[in-house]
Order: sequence, then C-alpha cells, then structure tokens
Amino acid sequence: MKALLIVAHGSRRAASNREVIDLAESLQRHQHNDFDLVEAAFLELAEPSIPDGISHCVKQGANDVTVFPYFLNSGRHVTEDIPAEVTKGQSEHPSVKITLSRHLGSAEIMPELVLNTAGIPS
Amino acid sequence: MKALLIVAHGSRRAASNREVIDLAESLQRHQHNDFDLVEAAFLELAEPSIPDGISHCVKQGANDVTVFPYFLNSGRHVTEDIPAEVTKGQSEHPSVKITLSRHLGSAEIMPELVLNTAGIPS
Repeated sequence: MKALLIVAHGSRRAASNREVIDLAESLQRHQHNDFDLVEAAFLELAEPSIPDGISHCVKQGANDVTVFPYFLNSGRHVTEDIPAEVTKGQSEHPSVKITLSRHLGSAEIMPELVLNTAGIPS
Repeated sequence: MKALLIVAHGSRRAASNREVIDLAESLQRHQHNDFDLVEAAFLELAEPSIPDGISHCVKQGANDVTVFPYFLNSGRHVTEDIPAEVTKGQSEHPSVKITLSRHLGSAEIMPELVLNTAGIPS
C-alpha cells in the first residue's frame, strides 16, 4: 500500500497549514493517482511532524511512503532538514520503504507554470 | 512594453534568492513569452524590494508591469503585504499599468504537478 506524504514548512497561521491539508485531501480523492493514501506533514510550527506523518501512514497500512517536499527553493530545509526527519522516520519503521522525492520547485514545468499563472489577474 | 516581476519571499541565504533570479533570467530567454522583460524582486530579506523592482522595470521602458507572487500559500504575505507594496510602486509610477496576478499556489494544475514531481526520487 503506497502513501504520499506532502511536507510543507508549516506556519503559525492555521489557514496556511489548512491549505496543505486541503491539497492532500484533494489528492486523496484524485482519480488518476498512484497513491492509496495522501497525508500532510510539517517541518516546523505545525503538526504532525514528518516522523509522525510517516507513522500515521504506516498505521493505516502503508508499506511504501513517498515524502514530497512542497517547497519552491532547494534551501537547507530541502537539502538537510527534511532528509534528517525522513531518516528519523525510517529508523522508526525499518521495514517500510520510504522514498524522498524531488521538491516542487525542481519541476521542469515550473517556468511555464509561472508564465501561465502570471497571466491571470488576482 | 510588458514586464513580469516575479516576487519571492526572500531569504538570508543568497543561493535561495539566486534561484528566483535564475528563474527570471530563464523566463527572459523563454521562446514563447508574452513579456519583453522578466525581473525578480523580494518581499523581505533580499534586494530589490517590490517598489524598486517595479522602478527597475520602468527604467528599462516598461509601461505595463505584472507582479507575480511566487508563493505557495495564500497567507498574509500574498493577501496583504504584497498588495501594499504594489500600491507603493503604483503611487511612484502613476502612469504605468501595474497588475497583481494570482499566486503560484492557486494554479489549477498544482495537484497534478505535485503527483508528477512526487514520482521522481530526489
């Protein structure tokens, strides 16, 4: 059973965290989806943490968890902090396959998406 | 002459700011591009500011500037702080058409992009 864990930075503002949870829930309902389960987790300032998010997926039956950094920049959070949290989660669940994916900002389509979105007035 | 100003939060880490500037430069070279000029600006922690970024576009001949929030969440920065900076820029250049576009996270394709990018190991 495959799970996707969407990891955002986390905010003091509940509505910002809610947007990430809403994204996870909308993906959970997505028709064309390789994942049986989609959950959200946060690096800082909000719950669940990454290890707790992984545990939550495992408790629901996942034996394969993809951790996706929902981040635009490849800063320290993406290169160091999230991998360290994933290592923590892996040590808690040694028999689960845990894969860290590329971060959102690295998507090849990003320049095109910027141009398309910039074309829509707020 | 149309300009696109990509606005990121800004980081103390030069490499993170550099990624936004690189994105702007790559869009400047983009073949299918409605904009004659693409620049980057930052809300905090890095230069140029949004009003300075707008001025920089105007100095290069732009009379139509689209300000694009390169943000995932629709938090206070997107709903209040960036509009306030755009208003400042507009008051400095009353004859320039300045449009605030939707923010990146509001792109309809985002859920699909998350699934696609999560499929690529880091």
